[in-house]
Amino acid sequence: MPAETPVAELVERARAGQARAVARLISLVEDESPRLREVAAALTPHTGNAVVLGLTGPPGVGKSTSTSVLVGAFRARGLRVGVLAIDPSSPFSGGALLGDRIRMHDHTTDPDVFIRSMATRGHLGGLAVATPQALRVLDAAGYDVVLIETVGVGQSEVDIVSLADTTVVLLAPGMGDGIQAAKAGILEVADVFVVNKADRDGASETVRDLKHMISLGRRELGPSWRQPIVRTVASAGEGVADVLAALDAHRAWLESHGELTVRRETRAAREIEAIAVASLRARFAGPGGSAVASLAKRVAAGELDPYAAADLLTG
Amino acid sequence: MPAETPVAELVERARAGQARAVARLISLVEDESPRLREVAAALTPHTGNAVVLGLTGPPGVGKSTSTSVLVGAFRARGLRVGVLAIDPSSPFSGGALLGDRIRMHDHTTDPDVFIRSMATRGHLGGLAVATPQALRVLDAAGYDVVLIETVGVGQSEVDIVSLADTTVVLLAPGMGDGIQAAKAGILEVADVFVVNKADRDGASETVRDLKHMISLGRRELGPSWRQPIVRTVASAGEGVADVLAALDAHRAWLESHGELTVRRETRAAREIEAIAVASLRARFAGPGGSAVASLAKRVAAGELDPYAAADLLTG
Repeated sequence: MPAETPVAELVERARAGQARAVARLISLVEDESPRLREVAAALTPHTGNAVVLGLTGPPGVGKSTSTSVLVGAFRARGLRVGVLAIDPSSPFSGGALLGDRIRMHDHTTDPDVFIRSMATRGHLGGLAVATPQALRVLDAAGYDVVLIETVGVGQSEVDIVSLADTTVVLLAPGMGDGIQAAKAGILEVADVFVVNKADRDGASETVRDLKHMISLGRRELGPSWRQPIVRTVASAGEGVADVLAALDAHRAWLESHGELTVRRETRAAREIEAIAVASLRARFAGPGGSAVASLAKRVAAGELDPYAAADLLTG
Repeated sequence: MPAETPVAELVERARAGQARAVARLISLVEDESPRLREVAAALTPHTGNAVVLGLTGPPGVGKSTSTSVLVGAFRARGLRVGVLAIDPSSPFSGGALLGDRIRMHDHTTDPDVFIRSMATRGHLGGLAVATPQALRVLDAAGYDVVLIETVGVGQSEVDIVSLADTTVVLLAPGMGDGIQAAKAGILEVADVFVVNKADRDGASETVRDLKHMISLGRRELGPSWRQPIVRTVASAGEGVADVLAALDAHRAWLESHGELTVRRETRAAREIEAIAVASLRARFAGPGGSAVASLAKRVAAGELDPYAAADLLTG
């Protein structure tokens, strides 16, 4: 598809189910193409329909397998599914050292499943800007469910997952990860907990630890949604129906409590702020980049304090 | 110490070795006190002397124990040591769910060791702003070495650790963490690798895997520094002399290659940018906060695209 295909036509084709048009639109928003704003404007009237799910958890709990199984379950319901797999790449090498991107062989030939790996490289606003735009593309293209899967734990992953209507946190037994995950804040963003690899030793202890942590955290959370804990063996497809039931229950709760609107407005507010901050950052990195460098020399030499330098930068 | 103690006097007391004055100054910068700018200006002439070390790695590798042992080793050299332990707290509850702060009982009564846990809560610029300011306090107060320890892995932790002159990445055998850590980008920020718990099964495999990854990544790194891999059993104090030797070697390399200046100017540039972005963010969150909320409503409703909203916000 040539680069000069008009945006309106790309959006039309994407909405007609052409995966190549979807991919092209995501590339335009991911690469911060000059046409990015045009794309965002063209997509907007068609957005707001997709169910947005976040899935995260520490390394090794089976996120990719669980994603694949969930995609299959949604397909069995006749739903079209988009997947955004977040690959936090290095700020230093411009790519993950061992960047084995997700491959979900079961679904790659299904025209009603679209899978995309997202990376941070080159994007000034990072995944905080690129991910919501990619989500908009899939939403406008008519995918009924968009699943955002993040590998790793940490603040930036938490920020991304918090884009979702419903966030699923995966854990697995015997990894000593419960407490560590809590430190990284992911337990507190969970709407649904899944203990995967539940056939392994220690699954009951993990569930027990989770229940304890949920009871400790209860005062911090809204009173009316009780985070369920679902056991799965994703590699064998066990427990998937229970996960779907938990997702449906959370959806019903969101809608009946006005929370869906609250979450989506919060998501939009963060998206706007991330874009505004990124565009201001771009100004610093642009013609003003040399200004930062010369201010940095003075700060590093102890001649100027960093707040005074920032004032000089922002005028 | 009353809140109204003049900043100049606090800085004087901190430089005279009063831990309470150091703690008070860090609180002022961490809480974004109105006097923050005054503090930054007062500290600046006294900064630039501390050796800044970063220490990170996946959960469970023994970071706190290693930090404690390193502190002891620096004390044995007669050096004063400051420790900043980064505790990524939740954006949701305002605190880690099980926020068991680091406790290093061996050193808490030593007047030449200052230990501080840093959390993100409440701070608009987050740890990206607060950590460099706390580092400035310790530097100006005359601590010879400042050790920044981050728990967890992820982009924000990588950003914090990249403040250091020398970054130590800890791994441990048998956790399957090597590849996962690579995904989070922490392997690539390492100047020195430490394989802790080296008395356990699998230590040789971990070292071998690391060597392999280093060889893969070599083309991405500068040609002249070869990242050493040091084996330790921190809980028994084994290998600590080797870690110190590796740190000294890296220090010598930094100084002989002009890299120390490069790193410190890069650190200052990021610090200035983080402050500038945080102050712009504060403008959005301040009187303009309701503007964001009303724009977010329109974006969530599909009436306005987020780029147009950001333009309206930033004028």
